[in-house]
Amino acid sequence: MKRQFGERLLHGADYNPEQWLHDPEVLKQDVQLMKQAGCNVMSIGIFSWAALEPEEGRYQWEWMDQVIQTLHEHDISIFLATPSGARPAWLAEKYPEVMRVASNRQRNLYGARHNHCYTSPIYREKIGQMNQQLAARYAKHPAVRLWHISNEYGGECHCDLCQEAFRSWLQRKYVTLDHLNEQWWTTFWSHTYTDWSQIESPAPHGENATHGMNLDWKRFVTDQTLDFMQHEIAAVKSSNPDIPVTTNFMYYFDGLNYFKFKDAVDIVSWDNYPTWHKRADLDIAIDTAMYHDMMRSIKRQPFLLMESSPSSTNWQSVSKLKKPGMHVLSSMQAVAHGSNSVQYFQWRKSRGSSEKFHGAVVSHDGSPNTRVFQEVTELGRLLHQLSDVADTGRDAQVAIVYDWENKWAIEDSQGPRNIGMGYKEEVQSHYRALVKQGLTVDFVDMECEIDGYKLVIAPMLYMQRAGFEQKLRSFVEQGGTLVMTYWSGIVNENDLVHLGDAPHQLTDVAGIVSEEIDGLYDHEHNRGRVIHHLEGQTLTGEYCCHKLCDQLHLHGAEALMVYTDDFYAGRPVLTRNNFGQGQTYYIGSQFEPSFYDDLYKDLIRQLHIQRPVEAEMPQGVYVTTRSNAKVEYLFVQNFTAEAQAIPALGAEWSAVTRDVDLSRDWTAASFEVLVAKRSLII
Amino acid sequence: MKRQFGERLLHGADYNPEQWLHDPEVLKQDVQLMKQAGCNVMSIGIFSWAALEPEEGRYQWEWMDQVIQTLHEHDISIFLATPSGARPAWLAEKYPEVMRVASNRQRNLYGARHNHCYTSPIYREKIGQMNQQLAARYAKHPAVRLWHISNEYGGECHCDLCQEAFRSWLQRKYVTLDHLNEQWWTTFWSHTYTDWSQIESPAPHGENATHGMNLDWKRFVTDQTLDFMQHEIAAVKSSNPDIPVTTNFMYYFDGLNYFKFKDAVDIVSWDNYPTWHKRADLDIAIDTAMYHDMMRSIKRQPFLLMESSPSSTNWQSVSKLKKPGMHVLSSMQAVAHGSNSVQYFQWRKSRGSSEKFHGAVVSHDGSPNTRVFQEVTELGRLLHQLSDVADTGRDAQVAIVYDWENKWAIEDSQGPRNIGMGYKEEVQSHYRALVKQGLTVDFVDMECEIDGYKLVIAPMLYMQRAGFEQKLRSFVEQGGTLVMTYWSGIVNENDLVHLGDAPHQLTDVAGIVSEEIDGLYDHEHNRGRVIHHLEGQTLTGEYCCHKLCDQLHLHGAEALMVYTDDFYAGRPVLTRNNFGQGQTYYIGSQFEPSFYDDLYKDLIRQLHIQRPVEAEMPQGVYVTTRSNAKVEYLFVQNFTAEAQAIPALGAEWSAVTRDVDLSRDWTAASFEVLVAKRSLII
Amino acid sequence: MKRQFGERLLHGADYNPEQWLHDPEVLKQDVQLMKQAGCNVMSIGIFSWAALEPEEGRYQWEWMDQVIQTLHEHDISIFLATPSGARPAWLAEKYPEVMRVASNRQRNLYGARHNHCYTSPIYREKIGQMNQQLAARYAKHPAVRLWHISNEYGGECHCDLCQEAFRSWLQRKYVTLDHLNEQWWTTFWSHTYTDWSQIESPAPHGENATHGMNLDWKRFVTDQTLDFMQHEIAAVKSSNPDIPVTTNFMYYFDGLNYFKFKDAVDIVSWDNYPTWHKRADLDIAIDTAMYHDMMRSIKRQPFLLMESSPSSTNWQSVSKLKKPGMHVLSSMQAVAHGSNSVQYFQWRKSRGSSEKFHGAVVSHDGSPNTRVFQEVTELGRLLHQLSDVADTGRDAQVAIVYDWENKWAIEDSQGPRNIGMGYKEEVQSHYRALVKQGLTVDFVDMECEIDGYKLVIAPMLYMQRAGFEQKLRSFVEQGGTLVMTYWSGIVNENDLVHLGDAPHQLTDVAGIVSEEIDGLYDHEHNRGRVIHHLEGQTLTGEYCCHKLCDQLHLHGAEALMVYTDDFYAGRPVLTRNNFGQGQTYYIGSQFEPSFYDDLYKDLIRQLHIQRPVEAEMPQGVYVTTRSNAKVEYLFVQNFTAEAQAIPALGAEWSAVTRDVDLSRDWTAASFEVLVAKRSLII
Repeated sequence: MKRQFGERLLHGADYNPEQWLHDPEVLKQDVQLMKQAGCNVMSIGIFSWAALEPEEGRYQWEWMDQVIQTLHEHDISIFLATPSGARPAWLAEKYPEVMRVASNRQRNLYGARHNHCYTSPIYREKIGQMNQQLAARYAKHPAVRLWHISNEYGGECHCDLCQEAFRSWLQRKYVTLDHLNEQWWTTFWSHTYTDWSQIESPAPHGENATHGMNLDWKRFVTDQTLDFMQHEIAAVKSSNPDIPVTTNFMYYFDGLNYFKFKDAVDIVSWDNYPTWHKRADLDIAIDTAMYHDMMRSIKRQPFLLMESSPSSTNWQSVSKLKKPGMHVLSSMQAVAHGSNSVQYFQWRKSRGSSEKFHGAVVSHDGSPNTRVFQEVTELGRLLHQLSDVADTGRDAQVAIVYDWENKWAIEDSQGPRNIGMGYKEEVQSHYRALVKQGLTVDFVDMECEIDGYKLVIAPMLYMQRAGFEQKLRSFVEQGGTLVMTYWSGIVNENDLVHLGDAPHQLTDVAGIVSEEIDGLYDHEHNRGRVIHHLEGQTLTGEYCCHKLCDQLHLHGAEALMVYTDDFYAGRPVLTRNNFGQGQTYYIGSQFEPSFYDDLYKDLIRQLHIQRPVEAEMPQGVYVTTRSNAKVEYLFVQNFTAEAQAIPALGAEWSAVTRDVDLSRDWTAASFEVLVAKRSLII
Repeated sequence: MKRQFGERLLHGADYNPEQWLHDPEVLKQDVQLMKQAGCNVMSIGIFSWAALEPEEGRYQWEWMDQVIQTLHEHDISIFLATPSGARPAWLAEKYPEVMRVASNRQRNLYGARHNHCYTSPIYREKIGQMNQQLAARYAKHPAVRLWHISNEYGGECHCDLCQEAFRSWLQRKYVTLDHLNEQWWTTFWSHTYTDWSQIESPAPHGENATHGMNLDWKRFVTDQTLDFMQHEIAAVKSSNPDIPVTTNFMYYFDGLNYFKFKDAVDIVSWDNYPTWHKRADLDIAIDTAMYHDMMRSIKRQPFLLMESSPSSTNWQSVSKLKKPGMHVLSSMQAVAHGSNSVQYFQWRKSRGSSEKFHGAVVSHDGSPNTRVFQEVTELGRLLHQLSDVADTGRDAQVAIVYDWENKWAIEDSQGPRNIGMGYKEEVQSHYRALVKQGLTVDFVDMECEIDGYKLVIAPMLYMQRAGFEQKLRSFVEQGGTLVMTYWSGIVNENDLVHLGDAPHQLTDVAGIVSEEIDGLYDHEHNRGRVIHHLEGQTLTGEYCCHKLCDQLHLHGAEALMVYTDDFYAGRPVLTRNNFGQGQTYYIGSQFEPSFYDDLYKDLIRQLHIQRPVEAEMPQGVYVTTRSNAKVEYLFVQNFTAEAQAIPALGAEWSAVTRDVDLSRDWTAASFEVLVAKRSLII
Repeated sequence: MKRQFGERLLHGADYNPEQWLHDPEVLKQDVQLMKQAGCNVMSIGIFSWAALEPEEGRYQWEWMDQVIQTLHEHDISIFLATPSGARPAWLAEKYPEVMRVASNRQRNLYGARHNHCYTSPIYREKIGQMNQQLAARYAKHPAVRLWHISNEYGGECHCDLCQEAFRSWLQRKYVTLDHLNEQWWTTFWSHTYTDWSQIESPAPHGENATHGMNLDWKRFVTDQTLDFMQHEIAAVKSSNPDIPVTTNFMYYFDGLNYFKFKDAVDIVSWDNYPTWHKRADLDIAIDTAMYHDMMRSIKRQPFLLMESSPSSTNWQSVSKLKKPGMHVLSSMQAVAHGSNSVQYFQWRKSRGSSEKFHGAVVSHDGSPNTRVFQEVTELGRLLHQLSDVADTGRDAQVAIVYDWENKWAIEDSQGPRNIGMGYKEEVQSHYRALVKQGLTVDFVDMECEIDGYKLVIAPMLYMQRAGFEQKLRSFVEQGGTLVMTYWSGIVNENDLVHLGDAPHQLTDVAGIVSEEIDGLYDHEHNRGRVIHHLEGQTLTGEYCCHKLCDQLHLHGAEALMVYTDDFYAGRPVLTRNNFGQGQTYYIGSQFEPSFYDDLYKDLIRQLHIQRPVEAEMPQGVYVTTRSNAKVEYLFVQNFTAEAQAIPALGAEWSAVTRDVDLSRDWTAASFEVLVAKRSLII
């Protein structure tokens, strides 16, 4: 594991001093407060275009020179942003083409943030010039450690330039219209295209039910955004190619396939704003952990937590304060799952506009005596204490398939449950059970390799692309254990249904054929009854299932569980099949959580997958590990508001963050995180 | 009754072989499977425009020649569609005027289906040429038995051509602006039109609260669609006027007044997609039965079930599988209510686009071994067994008024319950009670004649048009029994309120005057208490009522029931009035179902209306009859998932579809349909 | 108190005879019915533009001459409207610029009512000519007593003319772009404006999150509407400046800051359509009373109830009839709170268009024998009997701050509760408690003076403008008692957050500092426990609180109550601070109603504020007073459907409206209003 930023975990924030240039005292106070809070990095320049180039071609660097110099003097590193996330008013006024056109084909007016065309040559030219200038001036400054490319890329544009680009993209992909017509199945509804010029992007008042087109449009948007980003990166790398780049991703963002950014960024980073205390914190914690692990999995290396709020946000329905302890706990959760930083949006609250009440380290009172500032300071101390963690990564024996394009296809295609197929929820059901056992889980998409894992879980593999069915076949053949579910092996990468039995090309691997699938309303359920125990015997009795009920025929597999109700009572809902050296489990419905808990307890035992701690944790307490060749860190996280009795972890573990004997039972306080370590050198 | 299609009930599907031209094996397999499933008719060409005319003026007939010939060779009839339901991309690209303009005045982009202007001369020219060519080539082919004109006509266009057509329509109707201004009451809000050119169709950002205009716009849309259809029909009839025409109607479709199509089509057909198993099937069955009877009533002759799903649909919120038995039962329900066919959308599932997961006879696996294919095959055998039913119709002694324009007016006018007036629900309350007694019910609209019925029920006759109040007066005068309800006799055909007492010109017929009406929230109710029994004495005690409470004054009638609550407790809510040789019942509120059950039991006895079976059926079991001069068929339909004990039907009934003695009590299985018959020749 | 309309209370309606010109009998009948119902005023001409000017420049006065003359002959006064509320079709057709442009920048089509640009020079010219003609012809007619300027002004226009006007308005306000940029904090998101031309009004597809801009746009809309109204007024005053003017306001209308109309209208009037019987009438009564008092407070003189329904409305979700007694009660409630009139929309129901089923005095039957007409007649008699009330006003010792601009800012700014901050509800919590004690309450906005009140309540004073914080400081300093709440003193008039401690410049007056605020979901609550009693000892025990929980530090104040739950249990939620000669109470959360009841009982006693009647009224019975130097009227209003036992009011009160001895306990009937009086001359 190459160290990203030297011997420390990073602690910092988005910093927008251009809002305070009228009061030079603010910068001075800020630096003092940063040091007091244990901050060592600031992201600057994110929304500075108007401040850096107040009129076309006239640049203003002095204020940024001073900010960078001042931070550097105080040993605070800089993440320098390209300012493409929001453009100056003069640019929009002079070049209307830079503004986006919505799917209704109306061009936006100036305003908001993500509001520019990724195709526009003028926008590319202008941001290119800006980035080159930034790089020329600052890329060799010793404080500048990372390029923060733009901000939260997202959205799409339907202007004429984008229409042309989309058509070119399609021509490259399909070469002939015949091929496109066949893959999009346009003969349906007589939609055969006879000229490329007839194709328009999806529109509420035009074509929107040709799923193949919808998918390709989403892919095009990802590719065009990536292309725009690469244009930005080329500009900043022109002066110093050694500064790594990142761009900040968003929470389960559907608009872009983040796995496609894998090679374009040097480091993955993301912005994390959980709705703590809105529902059970132990559930929110799982949801957050899963995305941390997904971000880590994109490059299979530590990531950065680029934004978070030290207190409430201001865009949720209700802005709840983080209860005492939650700030440290939730920040350390990121570190536990592989982040090498904890950063905030933003350092100091703005005085006006839409985010003035968003949590920040320094509030409008400017005081370090606030509850929030104190918790940030406490975290600063802790991160400093845990500097060595920056040198560790996470290795997994289990991988779960989460594929953006599969999700797009599942959610866009009509039937069998238009009120919600629950792809993410299905994935999370498996993840939750594994994480509760303390396991490290990697996420892969269908373009990833899966060799080397003991267990691969592929929930709702509706779409098959990138030859993934072959990877699965060979994985099982060579001894791997595969878990599949209902609604798998249905369509190809263009949402064209495979002919023949489903799951396509995997009926022998799974040992079953799926004939049809029953949709259940939210108030309905069925049950699965265990008729054949696994070795571990944990999975037993009956479990509630809902949403979708696959109608299976055994095709070599044995039935482990059967439905109890409806006209398909007695038919299989969980099966196991031996194939080659390995095994495939097929789950025909979505079950209640205890099913996955019990199933995976059995599988973990059976597959000899090592858990970091053998003891069972109380509900809501999660253990997570990071390690390098020499040492393993254990993060015990209590996501409940109550103190919890923790069983002995074992004598090999020594507590790092407080004085407690972990070879005996001990008590974790409300929202406490405890870090322990053990040596891996025997 | 003229036999529509010879000595058989039809069984078939929409068939779209143009989607499979790349694989000639598919057509071969299809024909084998059709024979296996007992299919004898296929609808083809519905979305074939692009396949038939891939570029302007260049036609491609070979594939259709072959399909028709192949089907014919296997004794499968053809319903040949005109392809106007969806247009080729080249047409939209070259002639943008064919695309619709939405009410917001934005022209649609190419896409979807119903997306063309019914007024456009170019669209009419192009479809006219296509239809003539189709007819010239195939109208005399012996397999072609029916023209399937377009597909599910619907929607509206607000383009300049349509605006002009609307103004011309208005000029024909009103002749002078003064007349229009008076009928639309435009002086209100100072909207007096002083030039025809000032009139624009209703718009969200323009006029939308002039109810007379809204109504006329809806009438214009019906008339313009009808005019377009007649243009299509003229083209196909040019080669062989003997082939009858139909167009497929939709479930309770509000956009077109289907009664206006009565004379333009030779046969009525419709597409039926109930949401079985979503709520109580016995309720869904009533709702479906009512529409079957409405379709039958339009021409008062057997209709065709043109589309249905042999399994689930894919556009509902949840795609539930039909439980075993439901496919046969629900298909036979159509036949019981007067259909001479059971047809599906579609024969074979598409591989792509928006309906790829819609139920079909042949699934993506191409196999006849599926549950669905087996049930279709079972139905095929049954329809074959019941061929003689094709020779029967249905005669009714009871008519219910259901008037599209009245519904439009009730729903558009503001007050007294903008959250839902419940016109359809009110109509269905009466229908349900009658159908539970096994009666055949006709539907009429206000342009129909009502002579010859014993009982006419006119729920919520808010609007009066076509002199219907005079038809009712004369019907009662001559001895008929009329049931009226609250919210009747309020406006004329242009939604202009009648001055004087309500119900307009019927206060003497009904013997009451309605002064005002109270709206109830959904959580509120009142009750009616019987103070005077009918002869049958079934109606007794108290019944819950809701939604609207009419405030009546007796004007000759006697009160049979009074309100129990609120400030109008003790005032009449059900009255009876003798007028001429007949009687009028007036119901002042919407009651719970048992009220209608009990009221109509009394009225049926009193009016000596014959029920096919005297015995009371268990809840959810409905009996329905079809007959000709010689024989009567009885369909006993169990719409519950449980077996039901059926009382003896009488020795005159002999079971056709299974071996059971109907002169004794017997058991109907879950979702079973049993067909019996008796001779009418004494 | 100057008498507005002589020695009588007014009773009348909107009258639209132009809808009935085709039937001269109607006018004759109307006048007879008006006399029968005790009506003495009619508002005419509101939607008469098309009838008065059927084509450009051609006027038609005869019908209006006759209406005015006929009414005058029957001693019925006229409120003469300017017809700008709806324009003729010819005007929209010839001059499209008069039609509004929506925020999406689409220009409306002709239709509806409020659909014209307030900036358009042509619209101003045309309405100016019309108004001048109206005034020239009728302003000196003895029947004409008031100008009813337009109708329910509202809405906004985004056309290019309005954009220019907005920019000019901004230039006048800010002078320099630097100033605007600073106050709008445009550096955030790089939105710095470098040319005035870059500014566009808020748009869904443009800028909409710059709160300072949003606020200024709302202010501009108020100012432009006011400017348009003043243009209208100048035209009508040209002929006879002595006729007073009003314009009818709407229920809690957010679109216009009605306090800004204070000097432009001579009399305030409003249109009142409560949803009686939808929820508890005693709550609806408080809500309505509060707005009556707000309307009275704008000019601190009697107002007019310009519109109401004698029965149901037709635009609510359900049109409920007013139960017997409610019409008189609700009408008298307006009088009790300061109205000198009870007027209806409308006199006679229209036959067509959108409001044909809106309640009116005369229904479509044209009969005076209806329940509604009888109740109107009964009210007419009562108003006649109470003529002297017209000579009375209302004086208050308590003022509540309700500031339109503060409300705009609270609702627009994001966080801490985007699902609803509840400004109006918070204000009403205080008002309810005071009104239940029979007190008269004035409303003030921040531009008003507050000297002379004993108690000023300033709920959620988020925004500070017009130097109001200084007015509060000086008010308390000089001995006043101030009640403040959470979310106060946060931003300046442009929604720019104050730096330093909150509440800005009032931390010494309140004796507390607010550090942060916790948002609660609707299902959450906390509690406040009294730890220090007030003198009256009514406030005691615990009270539930919700929505928002302020986190306070004492800064001189004493804690009277503390939170019981969450991590801030034990911290202050109600405090009291002595400042100068006065006191400030600070309430940190929103409490259940009993808290305000108990708190204000204590404060009323402590501050020696006089209640009109010492006895406690039953729940739902409210007492309200009007007085002049000589006499005080007491209105006892039973807003429950049950009879209520009323304690003795005291020997000094004599009943006016029925014969009852008020020195003893007596019974108020369901929905009864009783009026009593006492002499103030000792």
